[in-house]
Amino acid sequence: MAVNLTPPTSLLPIAGIKLATAAAGICYADRTDLVLMELAAGSTTAAVFTLNAFCAAPVSLCKEHLSAVSPRYLLINSGNANAGTGEQGMQAAKNTCRQVAELTRCNVNEVLPFSTGVIGQQLPVDVIYQALPSTVEKLEEDAWMDAAHAIMTTDTLAKGISKQIVINGKTVTITGIAKGSGMICPDMATMLSYVATDAAIDQVTLQKILNQVVAESFNAITVDSDTSTNDSLILIATGHADVAITEADTAEFTAALREVCQHLAQSIIRDGEGATKFVTIDVEQALSTAEARQVAYTVAHSPLVKTALFASDANWGRILAAVGRSKIPNLDVTKVSLWLGDTLLLAAGEPASSYTEAQGAAEMSKDEITIRISLNRGNENARIWTNDLSYDYVRINADYRS
Amino acid sequence: MAVNLTPPTSLLPIAGIKLATAAAGICYADRTDLVLMELAAGSTTAAVFTLNAFCAAPVSLCKEHLSAVSPRYLLINSGNANAGTGEQGMQAAKNTCRQVAELTRCNVNEVLPFSTGVIGQQLPVDVIYQALPSTVEKLEEDAWMDAAHAIMTTDTLAKGISKQIVINGKTVTITGIAKGSGMICPDMATMLSYVATDAAIDQVTLQKILNQVVAESFNAITVDSDTSTNDSLILIATGHADVAITEADTAEFTAALREVCQHLAQSIIRDGEGATKFVTIDVEQALSTAEARQVAYTVAHSPLVKTALFASDANWGRILAAVGRSKIPNLDVTKVSLWLGDTLLLAAGEPASSYTEAQGAAEMSKDEITIRISLNRGNENARIWTNDLSYDYVRINADYRS
Repeated sequence: MAVNLTPPTSLLPIAGIKLATAAAGICYADRTDLVLMELAAGSTTAAVFTLNAFCAAPVSLCKEHLSAVSPRYLLINSGNANAGTGEQGMQAAKNTCRQVAELTRCNVNEVLPFSTGVIGQQLPVDVIYQALPSTVEKLEEDAWMDAAHAIMTTDTLAKGISKQIVINGKTVTITGIAKGSGMICPDMATMLSYVATDAAIDQVTLQKILNQVVAESFNAITVDSDTSTNDSLILIATGHADVAITEADTAEFTAALREVCQHLAQSIIRDGEGATKFVTIDVEQALSTAEARQVAYTVAHSPLVKTALFASDANWGRILAAVGRSKIPNLDVTKVSLWLGDTLLLAAGEPASSYTEAQGAAEMSKDEITIRISLNRGNENARIWTNDLSYDYVRINADYRS
Repeated sequence: MAVNLTPPTSLLPIAGIKLATAAAGICYADRTDLVLMELAAGSTTAAVFTLNAFCAAPVSLCKEHLSAVSPRYLLINSGNANAGTGEQGMQAAKNTCRQVAELTRCNVNEVLPFSTGVIGQQLPVDVIYQALPSTVEKLEEDAWMDAAHAIMTTDTLAKGISKQIVINGKTVTITGIAKGSGMICPDMATMLSYVATDAAIDQVTLQKILNQVVAESFNAITVDSDTSTNDSLILIATGHADVAITEADTAEFTAALREVCQHLAQSIIRDGEGATKFVTIDVEQALSTAEARQVAYTVAHSPLVKTALFASDANWGRILAAVGRSKIPNLDVTKVSLWLGDTLLLAAGEPASSYTEAQGAAEMSKDEITIRISLNRGNENARIWTNDLSYDYVRINADYRS
């Protein structure tokens, strides 16, 4: 059950990008689980990856390949993360890249591999070898919706968005897809997300823009504090719209990209494992953004806050306890204020005399809830998104392998 | 449902300590919820309290009173935490101390107040005022079991232990009780625990011993990462056994006290909200104890590891992912080894060739599970205890206020 999430009905193609999917039978029956994406020559690519030290074999290989050349193909599988698989897993990732290179006549390091699914099981390369030749034959521009479905694991809905802006009189299109529902606490990126535009942007600028946008989208969400081993976010600019993003246009393009990435990141939270609530946490008047984020994440990760959200119980003492244990140096609790939506709960450390349980119950009964915390000691803010902890989160994660 | 926890059937009295309980009607019907404890003149007392910045009014008052004089009375209530209650809550705590002082003819700062229960609701002082006079009349030495029951909140079983050691030919008794089941990630102490001995120990030594023991008992457990606002651990030495603990005896006394505190701390984990598994996490060969603890707590707090434990699913990739995201600088994953019980899963970063799913399933089906992680980069170790994340944890915390 996703919270107010409507899956896309269509996604705009990006000139210069072709996609194809296949049902290789990696883990699931009767569904697609493999995506091949072709990037036109001359495209630029920016990327961010998980900071988990146990990063998956494909993540290590992506970094190696990206440092050498600009990619021409992306090979993505769901159903198996190829993480914790040691040297055999690394060989498997290399071998699938090699096959793509042979079939498409490119260099092996022009292929980027991505995997998502169960950790600690070897990638079944044979079924991928078998599926690839016919997949290459099917590459087409209008297949983003198929790709959005093929990369899903515990996701209940496909996640994607297209956006168009006009720059210098010409239309620029941005299309992005993402997957992710559990093991979500991105630390540089989310589980898997691919965003492309037909604008032309040099690689250095593209990476700079991506880093900026990621901080306010994928790096501002958490389902369960569990940073994945496979987080990868890829941004491609093909330049096929015949619009180059100059310094004067960067702000406008960045704003559009931020909108796309925030939609994708929020989609992951709305479809978080077992989610029944979509929760925005605003921490204001902190000494630094880092401090504000630390408080926000401590609240977002608290099992007690998350179960109270699930129960629609305005048990705000649990929020207070989380703020208090967030290890902010010299926090003066007599300055802290707390709101649920527009309802003031705590004013400068004192319970608000205006507050009634009925107000709290009304705020908590909503399926979109904002928790606002003011530390009242600085000028920096942070906003993150999370969801609640329900029976279904336990069920999904107790059942996932069976 | 507690994991292999048998509640005490009796607890030894400590000469110099008297206790009485009452059913004041603070929150629960038909059960005791108030404890008064009298310490003989000349007793020494050591204490540790929560580091949560939003510490409860009674915690602040305890610290203030302890800094002035040695306590003569402890007043403990369950059913209401008197936390997040602002100035009114502080006045409530002071007023209950004042009443105890008047009834027993001691100074108000010789009374220490303790509260545990719901956060953010004002303490119903009237029912406490009403119950106190008859409670004072009932003070007796052999009432530790009654006290262990009266301090319970979501606990399913009372927690306590007595231990006797012989020092210089004389018997020294230590008795301790504790409560706690959720909001358990002590940061200096657990929710509420009271330990007393009839040995004589000067206050400075007593505090030193307590700090040492706490690190290996109450500060080595977690249920849900939520450090409480009310954590308090009190250690009292009455000296009534006519045995003074000298420097030569400190090690022996400390070992006995460690045993008592570890039993109480582990009892809290065994009776953790919704717990079906008792889990020991050993992190070995780290560069520092702090580093080892950081890895251990990241694994212990991972909702994905905890739900896999609940499901008895040897999904060890989740353990690996938690180790990888524990923010250990320059972690070399090719050196990390992992065991479930005695079963090797990962040897120096490579999946163990000897491992079978049947072995993993056998280890995970036990109700006492040990996860052992070697970082293979230093000589320091840490051991902590935790439990799993079950449907019942969600149920208990979604229902707690209703």
